Amino acid sequence: MDKVRVGVLGSTGSVGQRYVNMLRDHPWFELTALSASASSVGKRYRDASKWVLDTGMPEWAADMTVIAADPKEFKKAGVELVFSALPSEVAKAVESEMVDAGFAVVADTSAHRMDPDVPIVIPEVNSQHLDAIEGQRKRGKRGLIVTGPNCTTSGLAMSLKPVQISYGLKTVLVSTMQALSGAGFFGVPSMAIVDNLVPYIKNEEEKVQQEVLKILGDYEGGFKQARIRVGASCQRVCVLDGHTEAVFMVTEKAASPEEVARCMEKFEGEPQRLRLPSAPMPPIIVRKEPDRPQPRLDRMAGSPERARGMATVVGRIRREEALENGIKYVLLSHNTIRGAAGNAILIAELLKAKDMI
Amino acid sequence: MDKVRVGVLGSTGSVGQRYVNMLRDHPWFELTALSASASSVGKRYRDASKWVLDTGMPEWAADMTVIAADPKEFKKAGVELVFSALPSEVAKAVESEMVDAGFAVVADTSAHRMDPDVPIVIPEVNSQHLDAIEGQRKRGKRGLIVTGPNCTTSGLAMSLKPVQISYGLKTVLVSTMQALSGAGFFGVPSMAIVDNLVPYIKNEEEKVQQEVLKILGDYEGGFKQARIRVGASCQRVCVLDGHTEAVFMVTEKAASPEEVARCMEKFEGEPQRLRLPSAPMPPIIVRKEPDRPQPRLDRMAGSPERARGMATVVGRIRREEALENGIKYVLLSHNTIRGAAGNAILIAELLKAKDMI
Amino acid sequence: MDKVRVGVLGSTGSVGQRYVNMLRDHPWFELTALSASASSVGKRYRDASKWVLDTGMPEWAADMTVIAADPKEFKKAGVELVFSALPSEVAKAVESEMVDAGFAVVADTSAHRMDPDVPIVIPEVNSQHLDAIEGQRKRGKRGLIVTGPNCTTSGLAMSLKPVQISYGLKTVLVSTMQALSGAGFFGVPSMAIVDNLVPYIKNEEEKVQQEVLKILGDYEGGFKQARIRVGASCQRVCVLDGHTEAVFMVTEKAASPEEVARCMEKFEGEPQRLRLPSAPMPPIIVRKEPDRPQPRLDRMAGSPERARGMATVVGRIRREEALENGIKYVLLSHNTIRGAAGNAILIAELLKAKDMI
Amino acid sequence: MDKVRVGVLGSTGSVGQRYVNMLRDHPWFELTALSASASSVGKRYRDASKWVLDTGMPEWAADMTVIAADPKEFKKAGVELVFSALPSEVAKAVESEMVDAGFAVVADTSAHRMDPDVPIVIPEVNSQHLDAIEGQRKRGKRGLIVTGPNCTTSGLAMSLKPVQISYGLKTVLVSTMQALSGAGFFGVPSMAIVDNLVPYIKNEEEKVQQEVLKILGDYEGGFKQARIRVGASCQRVCVLDGHTEAVFMVTEKAASPEEVARCMEKFEGEPQRLRLPSAPMPPIIVRKEPDRPQPRLDRMAGSPERARGMATVVGRIRREEALENGIKYVLLSHNTIRGAAGNAILIAELLKAKDMI
Repeated sequence: MDKVRVGVLGSTGSVGQRYVNMLRDHPWFELTALSASASSVGKRYRDASKWVLDTGMPEWAADMTVIAADPKEFKKAGVELVFSALPSEVAKAVESEMVDAGFAVVADTSAHRMDPDVPIVIPEVNSQHLDAIEGQRKRGKRGLIVTGPNCTTSGLAMSLKPVQISYGLKTVLVSTMQALSGAGFFGVPSMAIVDNLVPYIKNEEEKVQQEVLKILGDYEGGFKQARIRVGASCQRVCVLDGHTEAVFMVTEKAASPEEVARCMEKFEGEPQRLRLPSAPMPPIIVRKEPDRPQPRLDRMAGSPERARGMATVVGRIRREEALENGIKYVLLSHNTIRGAAGNAILIAELLKAKDMI
Repeated sequence: MDKVRVGVLGSTGSVGQRYVNMLRDHPWFELTALSASASSVGKRYRDASKWVLDTGMPEWAADMTVIAADPKEFKKAGVELVFSALPSEVAKAVESEMVDAGFAVVADTSAHRMDPDVPIVIPEVNSQHLDAIEGQRKRGKRGLIVTGPNCTTSGLAMSLKPVQISYGLKTVLVSTMQALSGAGFFGVPSMAIVDNLVPYIKNEEEKVQQEVLKILGDYEGGFKQARIRVGASCQRVCVLDGHTEAVFMVTEKAASPEEVARCMEKFEGEPQRLRLPSAPMPPIIVRKEPDRPQPRLDRMAGSPERARGMATVVGRIRREEALENGIKYVLLSHNTIRGAAGNAILIAELLKAKDMI
Repeated sequence: MDKVRVGVLGSTGSVGQRYVNMLRDHPWFELTALSASASSVGKRYRDASKWVLDTGMPEWAADMTVIAADPKEFKKAGVELVFSALPSEVAKAVESEMVDAGFAVVADTSAHRMDPDVPIVIPEVNSQHLDAIEGQRKRGKRGLIVTGPNCTTSGLAMSLKPVQISYGLKTVLVSTMQALSGAGFFGVPSMAIVDNLVPYIKNEEEKVQQEVLKILGDYEGGFKQARIRVGASCQRVCVLDGHTEAVFMVTEKAASPEEVARCMEKFEGEPQRLRLPSAPMPPIIVRKEPDRPQPRLDRMAGSPERARGMATVVGRIRREEALENGIKYVLLSHNTIRGAAGNAILIAELLKAKDMI
Repeated sequence: MDKVRVGVLGSTGSVGQRYVNMLRDHPWFELTALSASASSVGKRYRDASKWVLDTGMPEWAADMTVIAADPKEFKKAGVELVFSALPSEVAKAVESEMVDAGFAVVADTSAHRMDPDVPIVIPEVNSQHLDAIEGQRKRGKRGLIVTGPNCTTSGLAMSLKPVQISYGLKTVLVSTMQALSGAGFFGVPSMAIVDNLVPYIKNEEEKVQQEVLKILGDYEGGFKQARIRVGASCQRVCVLDGHTEAVFMVTEKAASPEEVARCMEKFEGEPQRLRLPSAPMPPIIVRKEPDRPQPRLDRMAGSPERARGMATVVGRIRREEALENGIKYVLLSHNTIRGAAGNAILIAELLKAKDMI
């Protein structure tokens, strides 16, 4: 099989680096285009990017020359599919331009998530939303665009899906403890967070609420929100990677904690059935210890090796007596892997497996 | 006015040190007895206690000789009122012994909190529960015992009280981000919490649920639980002092965020009316900034000087659309001051002001 | 005594806030001018400054209107002495302008430290360097300017001075572990320092080396460097406030650790003799415990109350067998108090006490 | 080739876990015995060990039954070589017992390091010290014992060796910033180190000083200390893994920073020449960036995959003008890999390659 050539928009930031790292030796994709802002164009990637992962920058990437976020440049590099990790202020325009130029765009930015014909896809949860691409084509898009959810939505929607299927969901309240990398390398000053936490992340609660409803809803020629009530309180804590979320939920049918655990453990989606290279087996890991999940210990969960950081880890599933049919639990999901680059790569693998690129 | 002589049980631990620190130059109390475990008895306090506050150990305390947790020793020291910061495994027996010996005991341990004739008191919230002391006397107790709540309950119940009064409370869900000092100096290994959080604190959720109902309930010859449904998810984060709590609540009567803010800001209790020395003015501070409260910035809130760390700081009061009559907010309360030593001292001041000691 | 009116250049940053905080109720000074960059001018201080101290912004400061860093504005406010906490890129020009306009300027910036007629003053160490002001006057300066040392130099030079006097110094090597606040609130991203350290601070080693030699040298119509060899290795660690420094030194005359401890403990300077309001008594505290000083426990050392954070804390004084006449020890000094605002205020007090303003 | 069966003494602690992790799929060794203290004996490893690595416990280890630290049990498991990660209070006796029973013991404990016939080996640095084993045999030892150095000595001696060879060493002063894991999982309470550092590690400075001299010295029928003067100041900082050390040194022959860098970069030892499975290629990595090494980014340095964490990373090599022939630099070495388990495994590989087991 010939590899599909892919490029990364915004390749020098911390999510951009995750793409480069996860596309090492990818069996289906070959990374041939790395773009960044004007000041980096023309430099070698090694000089343009301050690498912050402990795995070392891959040599082949280090020597690549950074190009502009320009469709022509990406064409020259033979790219078919473009991953976008652009800063939000430029994402909308550049991603649209790429779609207009005929590329398949997989974006983990928020720019197009709520567009009426753009799906937010977690491959295990709502792969059928890829049907929306047909709608995009009908409306004349030359390329196509699929988005991944916000990093906080990602693990939440994953853990909710099996419960929605088996017991139905009425209400979901989530209180998050989010990692620093979610704000980008320069996002949170150390003086703001050491021996501290910040109970506020701009627009985050709104995103979680909206996105969960879109992802857990149906697509039938158009998106129909799920009929669930979702509320969030989002906080930043002093953890480098891995969003932890305390969830309270009301199910439609009564379910014991054991039943909830079982439906999560058994859950599988199309990535697992299709054995996609980056699909975690299983996608949800339920821990029985009283004190898990923990971000440092569990954020890299997921096997095989290529799926490290792709699993959602759930623990402390217990009854919430304060609610009718109440259940509470804690989940952990790696925000720059499953919440960004890894989820996007899995989307791309799904597109490839379904011959959509 | 002659000062009341007081003693501290468990004076060398981190809460014990808070007592010593807060009783500096107290206008009503004089600290004359410091007890600790057998291995410390006979040593000077300076040698027995590894001081961990940045204010320096008071000279008068440094030179005191540590005594045994023995009523006879406390009598010799002329003590009338005993503060207990004992470790839980010994608290029950020693506190009972002190009461039997005729002392007034104010305990911030959990040992006696759920006893049928022992009140859990937050002076601003339920000073009328001191009526239970009469019950204690009737049942033959020579001394008396009052407890303070768990450090997590403390700020929560404080913030709920004005809402309960003005709008009624149906359901309260709280997700906590608790400080390290709550587990004692040796409680949480650094390897367990740096770049991490632990979503579990033993028995904590049960304590919060029970204690809130007792504190917000009535006392009429016996305690009657409040008819509120309370659920908690308790997590430990890498913050030295100050528990942060994300609260979701359902009120009986609809209330706007502004109305909730106003009732909290106006709230006052007996300590404020009696102008007790350690009473914070006001007891609840409502911050309007989007990103407050924060533990490092707000945990020492409270004026006058003697009431530093005694105020509960509330912020981000907003509607929770996922709940009928839903409101959510974030609160911050200093766990070893308002959640332990400071609250106990305020109880003692209240007892003194009401001539109950 | 009428209070001297003072102003602060760069009042909204973290050092600026330290000035505001430490000038509360100052017995000799009244803060009447707060300046900041153009975007803040005209705003109230409460709105222009994101306050990061846990003591709360003083009400009188909160309501002051921020003015431009313009001599005319400072004149209008009746200011005689100006403290500068300006960012380095603008410090040089603005401070010079203030001196030209006739103000006494006390700067904790590096802009003018190495100027041939400008002293770097640690009041206990080299108050005689204020003689250089006469030189400034001779050369036609309308006002005067005195600088304080770099935050890393401050505690180091303080601890070296008594050893220099008693035993002479040949060589000093210092390895620092510096606090985050030294880089300003936004200086160090959390992603760069949590579970990490950074072994590099731009220009810091050069500053320490040069400044120590100037401060410990003589002034006789001109500055003469001390004949000591000084080398530094500067590292940033995950500590909010307080620079810790591991010092190795070679003395001219042999000295035992006990002798070194004694000469440090006995050390006093003009501030102590003149009983200046912010003078710590004593300026150097020698701890005997094996594991002190520690930044969180010792950075606020210093009494009386107004001198909190002004003392240099030294510990672990021991022989260094690898060096002839070798001694090693660890010191701790609060970088934004003794290393910036506090030292500058003490300089101002000294100027006032000596009738130089 | 048949694999050599190996066992781990003290397998449930954090260094023990590193052994289990690094012996996954080892090409030469098969782990067949895991021992721990009495309370764990008979349990499955999964239940006896609170796993703290983010790589997940290997399944084969999880199901092994923990045995006693008893030579008979190790014989039953077919073990030939024993790795010791015992706590210091029991290490001496148990390791001796194992040697007496005929096992080859590789210990990263300090118990036998300074014994006159026991070498401290860093395979790249002093593999010729394995000659001491012959001396052990002569003195009647049935088995043999080799130790690895203290975690702080490890990277230091590695970085010094090439300089010693090329330019000679007179004096070495080192100031360390050591990681939390060096004290074991429960060693450093979070309350002691968050927003703090501790400038003291018991006996550490003495160990570093003695061990460097032994390792860099000669073995000719007996150990002869190197004629270098070594002094250390050891500090603990809030970093999970990876010891950082600021080194000042005086060479015998003058050497420029570039020359020092070159001799370090070119340095190779027997492990590299023999292509041992866990040998890092190269053993010393010299970084040119001004701000490296950093523990979080560099502690896992080392290739191939099996040698991750085995390289010593050196940076900031520069002249120290305060010393004659002075050079200073910063080094980083993973304390539980190169400073413990990884170094011990490399020793075992060397013993195997040289047919000494």
